[in-house]
Amino acid sequence: MKSKILFITLSFFSILNICTTAQQKIEQWNRLELTLNHPFTGNGYKDVHLEATFTGPDTSYVVSGFYDGNNTFKIRFMPQKIGTWKYTTTSNVAELSNQKGKFECIKASANNHGIIHVSDTYNFKYADGKQYYPFGTTAYVWTHMGKELQEITLNSLKNSGFNKLRMCVFPKNYDLVKEEPEIYPFAIKEISKDANNNEIKVWNFDQFNPEFFRRLEKRIDDLNQLGIEADLILFHPYDKGRWGFDSMPSDVNIRYIKYLTARISSFRNVWWSLANEWDYVKSKSHADWDLIAQTVVKSDPYRHLCSIHGATATYYEYWKPEFTHVSVQDESPVQSSGAAAMLRNVYHKPILCDEVGYEGNLKARWGRYSPEEMTHLIWNGVIGGAYVTHGECYMNKDATDTIFWAKGGEFKGTSWKRIAFLRKIVEECPAPLSLADVGRDNITASAGAGYYIIYFGKQMNDSWLFNLPAKNGSFSKLKAGTRFKVDIIDTWDMTIQSCPLIFETAAENDYRLFDKNLKKVRIPLKPYIALRITEVK
Amino acid sequence: MKSKILFITLSFFSILNICTTAQQKIEQWNRLELTLNHPFTGNGYKDVHLEATFTGPDTSYVVSGFYDGNNTFKIRFMPQKIGTWKYTTTSNVAELSNQKGKFECIKASANNHGIIHVSDTYNFKYADGKQYYPFGTTAYVWTHMGKELQEITLNSLKNSGFNKLRMCVFPKNYDLVKEEPEIYPFAIKEISKDANNNEIKVWNFDQFNPEFFRRLEKRIDDLNQLGIEADLILFHPYDKGRWGFDSMPSDVNIRYIKYLTARISSFRNVWWSLANEWDYVKSKSHADWDLIAQTVVKSDPYRHLCSIHGATATYYEYWKPEFTHVSVQDESPVQSSGAAAMLRNVYHKPILCDEVGYEGNLKARWGRYSPEEMTHLIWNGVIGGAYVTHGECYMNKDATDTIFWAKGGEFKGTSWKRIAFLRKIVEECPAPLSLADVGRDNITASAGAGYYIIYFGKQMNDSWLFNLPAKNGSFSKLKAGTRFKVDIIDTWDMTIQSCPLIFETAAENDYRLFDKNLKKVRIPLKPYIALRITEVK
Repeated sequence: MKSKILFITLSFFSILNICTTAQQKIEQWNRLELTLNHPFTGNGYKDVHLEATFTGPDTSYVVSGFYDGNNTFKIRFMPQKIGTWKYTTTSNVAELSNQKGKFECIKASANNHGIIHVSDTYNFKYADGKQYYPFGTTAYVWTHMGKELQEITLNSLKNSGFNKLRMCVFPKNYDLVKEEPEIYPFAIKEISKDANNNEIKVWNFDQFNPEFFRRLEKRIDDLNQLGIEADLILFHPYDKGRWGFDSMPSDVNIRYIKYLTARISSFRNVWWSLANEWDYVKSKSHADWDLIAQTVVKSDPYRHLCSIHGATATYYEYWKPEFTHVSVQDESPVQSSGAAAMLRNVYHKPILCDEVGYEGNLKARWGRYSPEEMTHLIWNGVIGGAYVTHGECYMNKDATDTIFWAKGGEFKGTSWKRIAFLRKIVEECPAPLSLADVGRDNITASAGAGYYIIYFGKQMNDSWLFNLPAKNGSFSKLKAGTRFKVDIIDTWDMTIQSCPLIFETAAENDYRLFDKNLKKVRIPLKPYIALRITEVK
Repeated sequence: MKSKILFITLSFFSILNICTTAQQKIEQWNRLELTLNHPFTGNGYKDVHLEATFTGPDTSYVVSGFYDGNNTFKIRFMPQKIGTWKYTTTSNVAELSNQKGKFECIKASANNHGIIHVSDTYNFKYADGKQYYPFGTTAYVWTHMGKELQEITLNSLKNSGFNKLRMCVFPKNYDLVKEEPEIYPFAIKEISKDANNNEIKVWNFDQFNPEFFRRLEKRIDDLNQLGIEADLILFHPYDKGRWGFDSMPSDVNIRYIKYLTARISSFRNVWWSLANEWDYVKSKSHADWDLIAQTVVKSDPYRHLCSIHGATATYYEYWKPEFTHVSVQDESPVQSSGAAAMLRNVYHKPILCDEVGYEGNLKARWGRYSPEEMTHLIWNGVIGGAYVTHGECYMNKDATDTIFWAKGGEFKGTSWKRIAFLRKIVEECPAPLSLADVGRDNITASAGAGYYIIYFGKQMNDSWLFNLPAKNGSFSKLKAGTRFKVDIIDTWDMTIQSCPLIFETAAENDYRLFDKNLKKVRIPLKPYIALRITEVK
């Protein structure tokens, strides 16, 4: 038996730095990769237990390794604290055990803000403290399309304002998505035929296909380069007997989760979405999903964001500790900002409406919103302190079209630009938005002290009598004598115009503060107008 | 020491039937009362443990007794199963222990439907299987007003359509409610004066005042006679140092719960509302409320309906097993039927909006809804499959006025009549209401197979093109060739008019079924119109 060779790879790319002696440097939240070559004669996926304990400043992590095929075992680690880290491996294979080393974790560079966690109950921050506002879109199986299309998708995303992408590990078999993937997550045991002479692949669930996962990882890293979080969907029901990945035995599901998390927990831009439309996966019980949730959380040393997504109006028990946020498919929370706020009040977690319907021209009602409606619903949610995911479903010919929602490609719609515009407005706010006077005023959001966004939605007005609620969300009540300026935002035309007047609040009158001279703002008599009202000091 | 005398009282009234030998008969869900007289020299409230085990057909209950003052100990029991029951007492006082007897539980009479439990996840049924739809109102401290006013209140309730009443055990000290009660739940230890020369009562928390509880019990029985459930609020924050019942020591809270539940768990029309505006009770932590919830449930052998109510938009963890239903103060769920339905989908429990604001003329915005708005919000909730509680806050002179919401008296508003009208419509439905096509159609409720209620709210139409969603809640999808008639309901004028036409559904067209000849219903061009659409076979 040859002795193992230890490699270390740094950064989140596949740039292989072979190094056995010199002390390596790695940025916080980047990825360290230990490679152990060992000609193991058994099944590396099933028979080898390998983990490493990483000990750094005031903290230590136990991280699972994985078999990457070809006599290669790997352990990946994402250090978070600056300083010297040491590691030691343990394994049931003597040659893989007791491997030691150390490295230096250094301060992150400018574009590396770290892993994202929940912040202030309802919102998110990067580990370096920068606020993260999710503005996501959907391309369920873009990584299963041809390479060229994947590159087009990345380019589309690069030129958009999206910073989160919902995407599946497994391929999709659906009326509108029939493309056969190039590669599969498991080795093929045999290929048989069904009654209709269709090929049926019989999988060897004991043998993962590492190349499948390497390609997925490459795309997650590509997204990270673009500042996009990969909201990775681990299971989904869109299979219908074609591959059977929705109905694998429970022990295979668990093994798959452990393998996947060992491979990609160290990717800082990964979120776990346990399922899309979990309740349509008929092979799994509620208890199965609970077990899946527990397994994911237990297998992830970094506690990436984690949720589960059901069919329309199906709410999982998002209060369970495994779930960091709500990821729901429902139009109801975005029909008014008050409804979105209600979900915050129920769950005390960030609310992500990850499917409220999509812009498009499909026959199905979930895929035929006008771009105005898509934009409007996203604004409604954001004003209510929730986050709303975009999707686009234009089919101009037939199901071979690249419908972005599943396949990626180029954006054909027009709401995506408005969402980028909204994102800019939100990111300029001093604090995350939430209704200033919840239950009573469904159009006025506080976005920091002395900073408000009002969204009129479909209501058209030619002027607005300056008035704000006395209540101001989690901030101090609005006081008389406060001076404000007002920007008029056309959310559809993407213009921002400053009103030349300065307003000053009079004393509170029946829960509201008006301008002391009852001044008005003249606004365009159009729908989808918003106001940005900021204190002048 | 004299020997004890055993009395048995039957029925839910205080008709004392002394009987030591003959076997008694008692209706299901009525109340058996065992009375044990024993000159106990210690503190009967604190030092005596007394309970009885009741064993009946296939079931047994262990029920706590209580000290009723004046050397009298009592045990009350509500049998639910027809047949012979036996009981044996146990106590740390030998003379109260090992008392035995039996009685016969007989079928309930026509007006006795039993205790109410949750049915079909979102709704309620009496124990005899009759559906119960809560249409409640609010008179927080009516039992603390003068006797004459209490009788007026009962008379008002008798002539209304309300079948639930939110009411407090403890008196209320609030801007609009300053009346001193005649009687208190505890014995007075001493009366001191505060800095302003106001009387401060110092309570002897070791001595309950049984007469206080007897009067409360009388009123709960009076409500039962009227078919009204007593949604009894155990704690509330409206005290402000006047009596201190909001800030008793934790062990007193627990003793109070145990004493109260021993006395009134056997009252079939009691619901436990652990608090009104729990989050305004500054002396209690979240853990205190959890303990209170657990204590109530543990002390109640019959598992009466139990919830807790917070301030506006404050949602407790209603998913906890102690809570049988949601009892929330929030306007948001009734701003549209879709929002109400969302709460059903979140909690999978009955949704009671126990304060959405009240009809009235107060300065406070929660107490100045128009009767139209109050009625409208209740309709919105009901169409969404929730239940909404009424309240009335008219003050014509000053705070000495009998504002019904707190003090009872006579109704001065006009929504209460419309709610009785709505109740009749709901009770005529073959099944409880819920949105037929949730998330997509916020005005159409299914109320059984072939039975729909559409509520247009503030939207005015002069005609309605017959069309119904293909989806039909939990019922089978609507089929082509189904024939319907339509009643036009004016929810404000309380009229129901039959449309003379018969409609017949064509094939499904884009998620909806229209009449095969696209027939319309002519409707009055007014707000608050509803339709009742029923299949003609």
